[in-house]
Amino acid sequence: MTVREIIQTHPQPTSLDLEVLIRCIDECSDCAASCTSCADADLAEPDVQDLVRCIRLCVDCSDICTTTGRIATRQTAADAGVLRASVEACATACRVCGDECERHAAHHEHCRLCAESCRRCEEACRALLAALG
Amino acid sequence: MTVREIIQTHPQPTSLDLEVLIRCIDECSDCAASCTSCADADLAEPDVQDLVRCIRLCVDCSDICTTTGRIATRQTAADAGVLRASVEACATACRVCGDECERHAAHHEHCRLCAESCRRCEEACRALLAALG
Amino acid sequence: MTVREIIQTHPQPTSLDLEVLIRCIDECSDCAASCTSCADADLAEPDVQDLVRCIRLCVDCSDICTTTGRIATRQTAADAGVLRASVEACATACRVCGDECERHAAHHEHCRLCAESCRRCEEACRALLAALG
Amino acid sequence: MTVREIIQTHPQPTSLDLEVLIRCIDECSDCAASCTSCADADLAEPDVQDLVRCIRLCVDCSDICTTTGRIATRQTAADAGVLRASVEACATACRVCGDECERHAAHHEHCRLCAESCRRCEEACRALLAALG
Repeated sequence: MTVREIIQTHPQPTSLDLEVLIRCIDECSDCAASCTSCADADLAEPDVQDLVRCIRLCVDCSDICTTTGRIATRQTAADAGVLRASVEACATACRVCGDECERHAAHHEHCRLCAESCRRCEEACRALLAALG
Repeated sequence: MTVREIIQTHPQPTSLDLEVLIRCIDECSDCAASCTSCADADLAEPDVQDLVRCIRLCVDCSDICTTTGRIATRQTAADAGVLRASVEACATACRVCGDECERHAAHHEHCRLCAESCRRCEEACRALLAALG
Repeated sequence: MTVREIIQTHPQPTSLDLEVLIRCIDECSDCAASCTSCADADLAEPDVQDLVRCIRLCVDCSDICTTTGRIATRQTAADAGVLRASVEACATACRVCGDECERHAAHHEHCRLCAESCRRCEEACRALLAALG
Repeated sequence: MTVREIIQTHPQPTSLDLEVLIRCIDECSDCAASCTSCADADLAEPDVQDLVRCIRLCVDCSDICTTTGRIATRQTAADAGVLRASVEACATACRVCGDECERHAAHHEHCRLCAESCRRCEEACRALLAALG
């Protein structure tokens, strides 16, 4: 992940714990991709009618993770309130989406894998919220 | 705005006040574009050094408005908690970005216009939050 | 649309025909929202199985329209090659998505409306490509 | 990268070379994050005036990489023409942005790292275009 190296060369280093920050950026990127891929796999399943809520929550979660990852990546003139609000929204989306994916985990391996991504991302968001104080 | 017409043909009509919802979607779209355009105009100003915080907040605000507008647009299997968290993050971003743009309003017309977009979007988000209960 | 006013205050005015440029930005914004809303309405239809290709193309088209609208909005240090490639991708996505939505226009009013958005956006992209030379 | 595992469980496996496809998805994700981070680091540099074109091209490149990565990730009812147009736009953006970042590589380590990300992503896009035929 090149962004880890780039952030370390930033002219105004963050005062946040770098590992906590980078873990959040990394998990947002992983979860955004997982949710895009899971929604897409759902759409090709014969039981797509049963997966409507999963698709819906995955597309929302992918959008929020993408945006939150971008905001957490930016270090210049960072505003803690904006970062916090975005990371909170991301933790909420990951929790709700992870719960829904888990309901389908026994039948669809992509849902099981996506639920795990959502859990890791939610945890990484909560760790960053704790670090933000 | 075609999205207003499309939402009215949705097979599962929203229980939210449609005008409040559509105003939020519309203002998120307007504010996302304003912030992208203001950040870009800032970047071409001779005093770009003084506009660094404005650029930073505008790119964050544009990302959050884009994502929030998408989530508010989707009506299928909507989750009120995810919508609320995203709209709250959007109201925060619009408030902080609007404050910063206002500081430059006397010198840069694009900042004055963008601050107005941010104010309208923040208000539309708060009205939707009130409707969400 | 505030972005029209903001672009007119840009310190480095575009050499492109402003009406052609703004029409493209405006239609990209409209089409991105229409496609997000149409994909979402499709997902709630009883015949969702028949709308899988429509959903797929709408989510792609929404993503490309969002990105193309942002790139066309930015005037600072614009690169004609990057703009052209993005607008070409957008015209292609709008054509393919418009064709698919049209196939469902008789049964779903949201598809009819979305097809019209796609046609207008494709036209606006082609006009901008012509202006780019 | 969970998306690799999820794509392998997709009910309609791609006919494309999976390694070529996944490399493109992976590099789009890496390059999107690098460009967001490089634009942000540029903004904090004392010589920001000299980095205006770099910032501009990085934000465009990040947007196109994000969208292209999403479209390449989706396998359901894929349209080769839409995928090709998006990947072509991405290769163009990466080439132009990589050239600009390289100009600053001797002075700014983040530009050197970002240029490398752009080069890898451009190559991965060209390999996918070759596979698409």
